[in-house]
Amino acid sequence: MINKPKIKFINSLKMGKYRKQHKMFFAEGSINVLDFIRNTDLIVEIFAAKEWIEKYSEDIEDELSHEVNEKEMAKITALKNPSEVLAIFRIPEYKLPSSSNIGSIILMLDDIKDPGNLGTIIRTADWFGIKNIICSRHSVDVFNPKVVQATMGSLARLNISYCDLSDWLGNAKEGLGIYGALLNGENINKIEKPKNGVLIIGSEAHGISSEILHFVNKPITIRRSENSQAESLNASIATAIILHSFND
Amino acid sequence: MINKPKIKFINSLKMGKYRKQHKMFFAEGSINVLDFIRNTDLIVEIFAAKEWIEKYSEDIEDELSHEVNEKEMAKITALKNPSEVLAIFRIPEYKLPSSSNIGSIILMLDDIKDPGNLGTIIRTADWFGIKNIICSRHSVDVFNPKVVQATMGSLARLNISYCDLSDWLGNAKEGLGIYGALLNGENINKIEKPKNGVLIIGSEAHGISSEILHFVNKPITIRRSENSQAESLNASIATAIILHSFND
Repeated sequence: MINKPKIKFINSLKMGKYRKQHKMFFAEGSINVLDFIRNTDLIVEIFAAKEWIEKYSEDIEDELSHEVNEKEMAKITALKNPSEVLAIFRIPEYKLPSSSNIGSIILMLDDIKDPGNLGTIIRTADWFGIKNIICSRHSVDVFNPKVVQATMGSLARLNISYCDLSDWLGNAKEGLGIYGALLNGENINKIEKPKNGVLIIGSEAHGISSEILHFVNKPITIRRSENSQAESLNASIATAIILHSFND
Repeated sequence: MINKPKIKFINSLKMGKYRKQHKMFFAEGSINVLDFIRNTDLIVEIFAAKEWIEKYSEDIEDELSHEVNEKEMAKITALKNPSEVLAIFRIPEYKLPSSSNIGSIILMLDDIKDPGNLGTIIRTADWFGIKNIICSRHSVDVFNPKVVQATMGSLARLNISYCDLSDWLGNAKEGLGIYGALLNGENINKIEKPKNGVLIIGSEAHGISSEILHFVNKPITIRRSENSQAESLNASIATAIILHSFND
């Protein structure tokens, strides 16, 4: 059972301004919901089919779960094909990594706008062991339901901050490798694999912005096949190929 | 100007059954439309803003273009943010590549269902010089507007066929390398780069189906970072990393 005010509340969380106001978001699907429950203490409430609640009774607290039927789920879901579970979580307070002491690769996203791209980037970063992502202020909100969905649970394991990228990079330690994915950099197959540093990925439409570009001291490129006329790669695809190459 | 029957006709092309019936599809945005006009002879009609028609007057025939305003474009577009051009094309008759004589890498997709994934895979394949993609019959239709959009023009340069994958693979020449992206294959960083063969990518939900799996004679894997708990990679991401690795 789910009452009308709750339906209204969950639907409000589809919009960024209400997520900010309530400091909550929701996730859908077993993988996403369980990864948040198992990796964080952010759970607020669970709405799920009876069978789901029974199946995962060890993972969830009884008083937090509400049984809903398909008709009720259809009223709250953000998916075309609703899953059997939707859960509300508190938005965590992520800590912006210090730019003066970096022991691993930090992924930096300069105005990624497409929710599917951001979600896929987070999922891929998790696969390759990245722990920190820094997004520009105009990037899509990571708690947008489409982003959460595309992360397939990986969102629960990463630290994701939003800040002014120029400010952050301006404070970076001298000598830090700042890699930028460009069309005219060094072939990523030829570079030395970095143990730490920053990898900057530009926006879908405009690439890395000019204010950020001058911080890049290691321009890198994914070589195109000689017989290809393709103009560019999708931002999440470029991120994946570079992170794989760093991970070799 | 665009009349009501034409608006209805274009909207019908958003559905697979009408695309099949009329043997037509539409593309939107300058890159997609121009790549089809410049690479194929499939153009039927163009609907565009006055400025667009003037700018690309050398590429397009006057009698095929119709000036439309933003209000009219909103009635025919499949995009949230309509572009300045939408064009109707004939669906080409792609030729299924022979499985007995393969001189390059053929990409084979086993039930890719998400239009964004298929579009991104086509765009990425084009970047890495792939010329042929073979999809299982239950894969999403390549002329679905969301697929066309995500290809960013690359669809105009590839040969994409649908067939029964088992039949095709059953006729493949003995000794042909049939690579399958799996979770427990050989590390793609360690294998010899193939000059020809088939790369099979499984569906988002189920991976490579059991009927197809037994044809795989080169199981390959994208190594996950040791400290990662991520369960899988998105299908288009896996395709990209493997094609990049083959292209090294």
